Amino acid sequence: MELTVYLAGQIHDNWRHEVEEKAREKNLPLTFVAPQTNHERSDNIGEEVFGKQPNSLYKDDAASSINNFRTQVLMQKADVVIALFGEKYKQWNTAMDASSAIAMNKPTIIIRPESLIHPLKELSNKANVTVETVDQALEVLAYLYE
Amino acid sequence: MELTVYLAGQIHDNWRHEVEEKAREKNLPLTFVAPQTNHERSDNIGEEVFGKQPNSLYKDDAASSINNFRTQVLMQKADVVIALFGEKYKQWNTAMDASSAIAMNKPTIIIRPESLIHPLKELSNKANVTVETVDQALEVLAYLYE
Amino acid sequence: MELTVYLAGQIHDNWRHEVEEKAREKNLPLTFVAPQTNHERSDNIGEEVFGKQPNSLYKDDAASSINNFRTQVLMQKADVVIALFGEKYKQWNTAMDASSAIAMNKPTIIIRPESLIHPLKELSNKANVTVETVDQALEVLAYLYE
Amino acid sequence: MELTVYLAGQIHDNWRHEVEEKAREKNLPLTFVAPQTNHERSDNIGEEVFGKQPNSLYKDDAASSINNFRTQVLMQKADVVIALFGEKYKQWNTAMDASSAIAMNKPTIIIRPESLIHPLKELSNKANVTVETVDQALEVLAYLYE
Amino acid sequence: MELTVYLAGQIHDNWRHEVEEKAREKNLPLTFVAPQTNHERSDNIGEEVFGKQPNSLYKDDAASSINNFRTQVLMQKADVVIALFGEKYKQWNTAMDASSAIAMNKPTIIIRPESLIHPLKELSNKANVTVETVDQALEVLAYLYE
Amino acid sequence: MELTVYLAGQIHDNWRHEVEEKAREKNLPLTFVAPQTNHERSDNIGEEVFGKQPNSLYKDDAASSINNFRTQVLMQKADVVIALFGEKYKQWNTAMDASSAIAMNKPTIIIRPESLIHPLKELSNKANVTVETVDQALEVLAYLYE
Amino acid sequence: MELTVYLAGQIHDNWRHEVEEKAREKNLPLTFVAPQTNHERSDNIGEEVFGKQPNSLYKDDAASSINNFRTQVLMQKADVVIALFGEKYKQWNTAMDASSAIAMNKPTIIIRPESLIHPLKELSNKANVTVETVDQALEVLAYLYE
Amino acid sequence: MELTVYLAGQIHDNWRHEVEEKAREKNLPLTFVAPQTNHERSDNIGEEVFGKQPNSLYKDDAASSINNFRTQVLMQKADVVIALFGEKYKQWNTAMDASSAIAMNKPTIIIRPESLIHPLKELSNKANVTVETVDQALEVLAYLYE
Repeated sequence: MELTVYLAGQIHDNWRHEVEEKAREKNLPLTFVAPQTNHERSDNIGEEVFGKQPNSLYKDDAASSINNFRTQVLMQKADVVIALFGEKYKQWNTAMDASSAIAMNKPTIIIRPESLIHPLKELSNKANVTVETVDQALEVLAYLYE
Repeated sequence: MELTVYLAGQIHDNWRHEVEEKAREKNLPLTFVAPQTNHERSDNIGEEVFGKQPNSLYKDDAASSINNFRTQVLMQKADVVIALFGEKYKQWNTAMDASSAIAMNKPTIIIRPESLIHPLKELSNKANVTVETVDQALEVLAYLYE
Repeated sequence: MELTVYLAGQIHDNWRHEVEEKAREKNLPLTFVAPQTNHERSDNIGEEVFGKQPNSLYKDDAASSINNFRTQVLMQKADVVIALFGEKYKQWNTAMDASSAIAMNKPTIIIRPESLIHPLKELSNKANVTVETVDQALEVLAYLYE
Repeated sequence: MELTVYLAGQIHDNWRHEVEEKAREKNLPLTFVAPQTNHERSDNIGEEVFGKQPNSLYKDDAASSINNFRTQVLMQKADVVIALFGEKYKQWNTAMDASSAIAMNKPTIIIRPESLIHPLKELSNKANVTVETVDQALEVLAYLYE
Repeated sequence: MELTVYLAGQIHDNWRHEVEEKAREKNLPLTFVAPQTNHERSDNIGEEVFGKQPNSLYKDDAASSINNFRTQVLMQKADVVIALFGEKYKQWNTAMDASSAIAMNKPTIIIRPESLIHPLKELSNKANVTVETVDQALEVLAYLYE
Repeated sequence: MELTVYLAGQIHDNWRHEVEEKAREKNLPLTFVAPQTNHERSDNIGEEVFGKQPNSLYKDDAASSINNFRTQVLMQKADVVIALFGEKYKQWNTAMDASSAIAMNKPTIIIRPESLIHPLKELSNKANVTVETVDQALEVLAYLYE
Repeated sequence: MELTVYLAGQIHDNWRHEVEEKAREKNLPLTFVAPQTNHERSDNIGEEVFGKQPNSLYKDDAASSINNFRTQVLMQKADVVIALFGEKYKQWNTAMDASSAIAMNKPTIIIRPESLIHPLKELSNKANVTVETVDQALEVLAYLYE
Repeated sequence: MELTVYLAGQIHDNWRHEVEEKAREKNLPLTFVAPQTNHERSDNIGEEVFGKQPNSLYKDDAASSINNFRTQVLMQKADVVIALFGEKYKQWNTAMDASSAIAMNKPTIIIRPESLIHPLKELSNKANVTVETVDQALEVLAYLYE
């Protein structure tokens, strides 16, 4: 049974690559989809499509409309959502995506370091599973195929 | 037409009181509901109901189960959701509540300072209206009754 | 049985007043809700809440976010939607509201002049009832109480 | 990831062909579906199936029932909806289709000329993305695959 | 707890009056709603609102659009649906209303004579409860308040 | 685009075979599904699975539970529903299936003879398209692929 | 804010009375609804309405159809569901009601003794809150009003 | 037509293997999915992923979060659910899965021995079909393909 996994979360390091590599090693028949991971491209996509905006508010709104479009298309295709939180950045997009996924009844795994237990406690409680490492998330995905 | 408004957001100052006062001054027939705003009570409610937990992870999970119960009951009763973000704290609960509200088709207003435009851009783009002050949010609520 | 009726459509004459008057004459226990009918206020509400916008695109987007908020709140409260089309103006808002109402399973009546039969044929076919006059729409509402 | 795109909008020129050509040039794995684009066929399909109708009202209603059937089947299959507005014609079908798509949670792109910013402002505000040209819409679709 | 009960079924005798009388005798706090029970009015409502139609097909379609509007408004308000079948007439409306009610998750009681067990077997199997008499249906309603 | 079509309706003649043949002649990429069309098997399936039942009421209820199971599985897989009514039999199953399909937002075509216009008027008004012959229904299906 | 609470669970002792008494002592504005708590009446309601059944299978099915009708009506009215499990009896009804409530997005509290932690672990994990005593459940309800 | 069948129920014997074998003998194009059937693995999966837990309550909650994740992923993929009850064990998971499946509109078959008629009567009444043996369930599945 082939499944599609949406990987929500920060785009500052290549954690998604790690997930994909480890899934391949385990021979899991998973397809991964994700937001735009080129940070600059993600921030500029609005002006690249619509042209120069009057100020940064409008630049951001323009970019976010296209990023949200992408997320909506791909998350609707997903059977599972994994949302990774790290120690840096606001990551409200990640919280938004995880919360949307839960509201859409997408089975959801949160990955977050121990240091974030307290601020993420309500979101963790609503997600199906909360783990601390990519390896643990992969174990949970592999469990689907046992 | 009486409406119920859920006030999501930080519980570190009394911004909800300000909203309620200003709604009363404008004679808006609104009922406000909200999460537990006594921070200590909110953090401890799990141990107060279930007793001492083995460590802070379980203490947090216990508290969050009851806080999420409360939010689910009250948000389902709400006709409108207002989510306020400030400059301090992670506020992932606020992002989670705003995102849930949007997914539940609750008309949603976000209040956030100018400094948070960028990190909140995708969530703002999905909400109905994003403003910077409580006064602006009240103007939007008052507009419902013109 | 008290019912709430959302009156979608142009805001250039006082047709809503006529509907309300005639409902009162028939003693129908109906509450009417509607978009902002002060045209200038409707167009300017964005700048009135957010302040001066860079150009008319942003002014319009700001206004529409608040108008859409209002429509979503009030239409969710409605048991019935009436959408009136006239011979002037683009009226894409009216088409949008009627189509949203139908998708939300709100029982929907369209009022349109004979001259608009052809361009509105698909929307009329999806609505419950299409009539040509306010009087006919009132007859349909009155029929609920026979 | 193969996606299906419903192309709503006027059927007076071959803009859909342009969309399909440009998608092919970009090697996007998209399947396009659309309403009947032969205008005469679209207007006459009712009488062609049901036979001569008493007058143009019934001819139009007959045609629209079959056109709406087609739209419902194909839009339910679509992952994305693009709705193009031009400067001519009432185009209430286009507004209806865009609004239905949004209500069905289909990620939606509107294409409209600058001259239509004002009358389409509420619909644009509800759509995911609003652009002015087919090329821009294609850029947004291509962004899904980056 | 006040409940609203939609009484679907034939309009050729006054069985609804019997239901209402017996509910009153049992002091059940029920409000009853129903389709138009004046048969002639029900058949003619289309022409009464829209004027003379070209032939009986269009007369019937006109009437049914208004009857369906009424049913949709009232059934959406109902907490319970009772559908009564008798030995005469096609009663496809009754089957349609019962089936819609079940699809809308309205708790549904069917009343039908023993002679109709076989042709109604699939619909009975989907309804919550199938009885043979108005008295039995009232017993089931009364059971809600024990 | 391959589509699945559920063929609801009487099982006393081989009208489904005619539909399938004509679809093949037109090279339409359609898969047809249907209720059990062996009438005896359909009536007896309950006793064949559960064993002899106490009386015909229970025999019928047993059979209908399995027939409803089949219909639910297959109709959920269908993109389009066609419901054919003839002049004989109660056909409440057909009305139930058509009404369920409409409530499930399945695009629905009704086929019924002219003689049944009046008793089917409300159901016809809710279906997408109502025709009189299998050939007309096929024309409507073929129109999807033009 | 008045709320309605459905009390699912065994009907062998008067735990519901205890819940209601304690809610009254705390002045909580709650209305409680519940299944039929007269066990004999609950088991016999089928035969009391339909008459003597051929054997206990049919007697049970008849009773359950009316009990399920009651539960569906009352649970749809509920804002909160409490499901109590004890050490005796199969209590599959309680598990069914709790699971239905969760699937219907009703905020749900489970009460179960420590001895049942293991067999109820998956259901507890899906419920909002799991406690061991009626007093704890009341504390959670009271927390809604702080 | 290929269908996916979720097999809910106890994991103490190899009844799922029997279902799969018999489906193969009948050449039914079915794919079967199921919970983790290695009982020890199912009970320990939480500690295997999260590490040693403070006590058995937390061990159970950790395991159940992953088991529920698995069930949600696989049941959402299923076209049909079969839930088997035996004479031993609490089997509240089975009741929970069957009840969830019914609430999700998954066509559902219950298999239970005659001895469990009474305690399962409400759940049986809500399921599509209740049988006593695996062979009967297979007959029902085979009936889909006749």
